[in-house]
Amino acid sequence: MKDVTIDTITQAFLNYCSEDTDPRTYTVLKSMVEHLHAFVKETELTHDEWMRGLQFMFEAGQISTQERNEFVLASDVTGLSSLVDMIGSQHEGTSSSVLGPFHVTGAPELPVGGDLKRDNEGNTVVIEGHVKTVDGAPIKDAVIELWQTATNGLYSNQDEAQPEYNLRCSMKVGEDGRYAITTVKPSPYKIPDDGPVGDLLRATGRNAWRPSHLHFIVVADGYRSLVTEVFSSDDEYLDTDAVFGVRDDLIMEYKETTDMDALPTDLEVGTNVTSPYYKVDFDFVLVPTEAS
Amino acid sequence: MKDVTIDTITQAFLNYCSEDTDPRTYTVLKSMVEHLHAFVKETELTHDEWMRGLQFMFEAGQISTQERNEFVLASDVTGLSSLVDMIGSQHEGTSSSVLGPFHVTGAPELPVGGDLKRDNEGNTVVIEGHVKTVDGAPIKDAVIELWQTATNGLYSNQDEAQPEYNLRCSMKVGEDGRYAITTVKPSPYKIPDDGPVGDLLRATGRNAWRPSHLHFIVVADGYRSLVTEVFSSDDEYLDTDAVFGVRDDLIMEYKETTDMDALPTDLEVGTNVTSPYYKVDFDFVLVPTEAS
Repeated sequence: MKDVTIDTITQAFLNYCSEDTDPRTYTVLKSMVEHLHAFVKETELTHDEWMRGLQFMFEAGQISTQERNEFVLASDVTGLSSLVDMIGSQHEGTSSSVLGPFHVTGAPELPVGGDLKRDNEGNTVVIEGHVKTVDGAPIKDAVIELWQTATNGLYSNQDEAQPEYNLRCSMKVGEDGRYAITTVKPSPYKIPDDGPVGDLLRATGRNAWRPSHLHFIVVADGYRSLVTEVFSSDDEYLDTDAVFGVRDDLIMEYKETTDMDALPTDLEVGTNVTSPYYKVDFDFVLVPTEAS
Repeated sequence: MKDVTIDTITQAFLNYCSEDTDPRTYTVLKSMVEHLHAFVKETELTHDEWMRGLQFMFEAGQISTQERNEFVLASDVTGLSSLVDMIGSQHEGTSSSVLGPFHVTGAPELPVGGDLKRDNEGNTVVIEGHVKTVDGAPIKDAVIELWQTATNGLYSNQDEAQPEYNLRCSMKVGEDGRYAITTVKPSPYKIPDDGPVGDLLRATGRNAWRPSHLHFIVVADGYRSLVTEVFSSDDEYLDTDAVFGVRDDLIMEYKETTDMDALPTDLEVGTNVTSPYYKVDFDFVLVPTEAS
């Protein structure tokens, strides 16, 4: 391939790949390079625009740390993360949604019905439901992880004023698959917009806000792990989530109520609940591992 | 756009862009995101593969400095740089080729026929020709910049043993558009392969070598600046240039000769040329600015 031309360069790249290349690696690279080349041809991308793109990448690299990954953010705001997520979870169970960058491991265990709100200011929320199969049968011994923002819109690992693991817990359900948690209503927040991704959002007149949500990971033996988020039906940013995370079945109503009798009586939920409070009912539906 | 699905997410991204978005920015982003999404759908990219891609970007960011830009390298080895280059220079003049990362400004001026080889070891090369129009008319007052590796395959800014600006010069041609330089035969070299781009080359069984070349920038008032490279017809890496830089009209023959009478007599070329030496004839054909 001495003479590379506009018409031969894509094939030239493919010809360079040795026969020993892992077949899946080859398939992914082939599609990636074909689409990148098609993009450049279709737009007749100029040298200056190409430089601008490279500058975006360079700046993203410079601002990234183990704690803040600007490339994940770029993937989020272009819908790539959500698309990968949706493609990987086409089944009848609860929709998955983005993991996001604020998950940490090691959150303390809370018993079913336990209080996660503690001294946090804000509206009290009681969220309860079951972990179950698509047929409605309870899944016993499932473990639910929950993490969320405080009322100020910050996660505990973004905010030195919060105790370690504030508003983060792990909860093991029993034979009946039931869970219940007292917590605080989460707040909307802006994704970090002080880097090149922020420049992209501003260039396209987009907002950096995410609607308020609770993050969950639900794990049970024999079932596909579920990474998801649960949104509030009254959130003003539901239609414009900066990272495309909202799915129809993940929007729930926070029902404001003064009915203390609606609280479970067989669990310790309610010991610090004062009227009025918000009640949320949400079931997690898992699919068996082999259904993937 | 509350409920984002596999089928609606691309349009959701476009809907997010405000009407005030610069039209060209919108066009480029639209094509980019459409192709990225199509790539993910076509390959059914898994979460692990997506993570691998993000890890590539993160590592590229970590290894990049102002002196070493791994993203440029990634663009080079996937053919993107050359494709942008070719799309931007579709005309009847000399083909352009990649600038590469080793250009520095401020190289000292050398008179036409001057000696750039000086104390450098290696085979002596006399390269000469004209800067001219597509019709063959000389272009006066053009300025040629040349930079190249020493025989060890390193540029002066990669090698502390070389004097500053070794094998780099700028040369202003006269009324006749003629240039002539005595220099040393350049050597093939490997692009940096100790980062994620190196991992990519190894995963696809590719070599990291570039065929030996002389870099040129030719600038003249009223003409499009030419950034190009000139290759040697006997180079073993001509068919496998890691960055797809070779064009048919940029391959020249290094003619080994003992004929001292073939040297120009009206220039100082030849004062340090000993037999045998290599003779290269190459003309630079520029196109007017308005032909772009």
